[in-house]
Amino acid sequence: MYTIHSGLSHNKWDNSLKPVISIKPGETVIVESKDASDGQVTPSSVPSDLNKLDISRIHPLTGPIEIEGAEPGDALEIEIIDFETKGWGWTGVLPGFGFLANENYTAPIDLAGPALKIWKVGSNAIAKFGDIEISVPPRPFPGVIGTALSTRGRFSTIPPRENGGNMDIKHLTKGSKIYLPVFVKGGLLSLGDTHVAQGDGEVCGTAIEAPMDVKLRVSLHKDSELNQPLFETYSVRDSEFKEYLAYPGIDSNLWEAGKKAIKGIISVLSRFMSPVEGYMLASVAVDMRISQVVDVPNWIVTAYLPKDIFPEDVRPKLRVV
Amino acid sequence: MYTIHSGLSHNKWDNSLKPVISIKPGETVIVESKDASDGQVTPSSVPSDLNKLDISRIHPLTGPIEIEGAEPGDALEIEIIDFETKGWGWTGVLPGFGFLANENYTAPIDLAGPALKIWKVGSNAIAKFGDIEISVPPRPFPGVIGTALSTRGRFSTIPPRENGGNMDIKHLTKGSKIYLPVFVKGGLLSLGDTHVAQGDGEVCGTAIEAPMDVKLRVSLHKDSELNQPLFETYSVRDSEFKEYLAYPGIDSNLWEAGKKAIKGIISVLSRFMSPVEGYMLASVAVDMRISQVVDVPNWIVTAYLPKDIFPEDVRPKLRVV
Repeated sequence: MYTIHSGLSHNKWDNSLKPVISIKPGETVIVESKDASDGQVTPSSVPSDLNKLDISRIHPLTGPIEIEGAEPGDALEIEIIDFETKGWGWTGVLPGFGFLANENYTAPIDLAGPALKIWKVGSNAIAKFGDIEISVPPRPFPGVIGTALSTRGRFSTIPPRENGGNMDIKHLTKGSKIYLPVFVKGGLLSLGDTHVAQGDGEVCGTAIEAPMDVKLRVSLHKDSELNQPLFETYSVRDSEFKEYLAYPGIDSNLWEAGKKAIKGIISVLSRFMSPVEGYMLASVAVDMRISQVVDVPNWIVTAYLPKDIFPEDVRPKLRVV
Repeated sequence: MYTIHSGLSHNKWDNSLKPVISIKPGETVIVESKDASDGQVTPSSVPSDLNKLDISRIHPLTGPIEIEGAEPGDALEIEIIDFETKGWGWTGVLPGFGFLANENYTAPIDLAGPALKIWKVGSNAIAKFGDIEISVPPRPFPGVIGTALSTRGRFSTIPPRENGGNMDIKHLTKGSKIYLPVFVKGGLLSLGDTHVAQGDGEVCGTAIEAPMDVKLRVSLHKDSELNQPLFETYSVRDSEFKEYLAYPGIDSNLWEAGKKAIKGIISVLSRFMSPVEGYMLASVAVDMRISQVVDVPNWIVTAYLPKDIFPEDVRPKLRVV
């Protein structure tokens, strides 16, 4: 078993990078991951610090890891075995970034940021939103996990692509297996942007961002038909909460339906906290599901807010009626 | 307690309709619902019968139910207490209708329909797809539930609107509460289009369509701020399966990302059944979740296929690697 230190990182996809380690198929590694900001956000950061972020350092990825014998046309199978968090995490709204960045909300509805929440992470992730202590169960996963691209050059880590990358899929947690195509010799696997918890959508652009260690086992499938990411997971049911308030966004444009759903949830949350806090909480805990895409001409995206993350006395108040 | 027979139905939203019954807030009713086709599809139907459907009869809604004292500006709270299914259901692809209706697939990938699957519905819904017996746990809900609109006239039941209507939200099942705005005196609640089970998305345009009885309790909230549907549910975790294969659709357009995800799942299913059977099975059991909408310029919709609905010996084969 190997440990790959977080200092061994890169922040562009670049298939000419030298591997920091070479492993055999079937071997297990512990990958130390920095947080998405590359250490620029710390437990003592304040919101205005986000204005000074050097965006070019997002995201530092640990790796690349060479898998012996991997050739273009093969596939990697990465079993995600376990995570070790480091006691804290952060959620922030960076001006100009996020699902509602271009909405012209007027005061007192201000979602523009900068806004920052520092979480204490133990058996739960804890932070205050308004006067309410929110408690989110950790379901850690790597926001970014990918192989080297087939194309030469240096590519931003922000968009996900056929190599995986910044997929931000919350179910890539303990026990899941992700399959990724191999485009270059050795595969060159990297990961980073580790999240303690996230809602489907990651609407404000950040989850509970945190450094952590990720334990993986990497296997190799020769001559695969795989041409993009695919995964298997047992973690969906356990990732769900007991009780939800849900707001359907109805629109003839799916993107706008999603915005209506999230705005609806933020309007409920804004009775208990500032709108931008509601936006961050939605990013961490609210799931966007596509209810239907067939009832012409109006589609529905529904936003599901788990009540379980609120203190018991607040839960019954979480509705608009 | 009242029973409202399915013969007391209408197939347009029309706020001038006379109520078929008047109840007091807090009272319980059993609403008999026809299937979405208004009885045109039967357990002995064949695919070509779908070409002869009189579409104007979709969907028959039982009601409207007047709630005493309900006035514009109030909200109804509808607690969904229980369902009684009737032993069968159907899933079909109607030519020209559905999420992939306009895709120019070429043979042997033919999703155009007509295609029809008849399910036996007991403790599970059972049907053969290819040579495989698929077993889907019933999670019944009304595809359509709504109040009368504020506008005079006769309106199609196909699109969902601010009155609810054809939302096709799979979590409106036993134990859930839906809140709907009241736009006219008495509220005038109707429901229909009952489904035995459905995936988030309802991609082929039909779920497991079936007649059934729905037991409801209707309460009234005076002077509500509600201006569109909202619901509370405890059924999300129980609606999930143990084991999934998941295919991320990655695209700079959210709608296209959804299509890629569903096509990916259909391509996996097509190893075991015809593509159009895969399309129907995805409609009944595959969930579309919005993984992220912030990693510019590529968004992700992931399609989650539950392996639990397959026989145990088939489950390990459900991947592409």
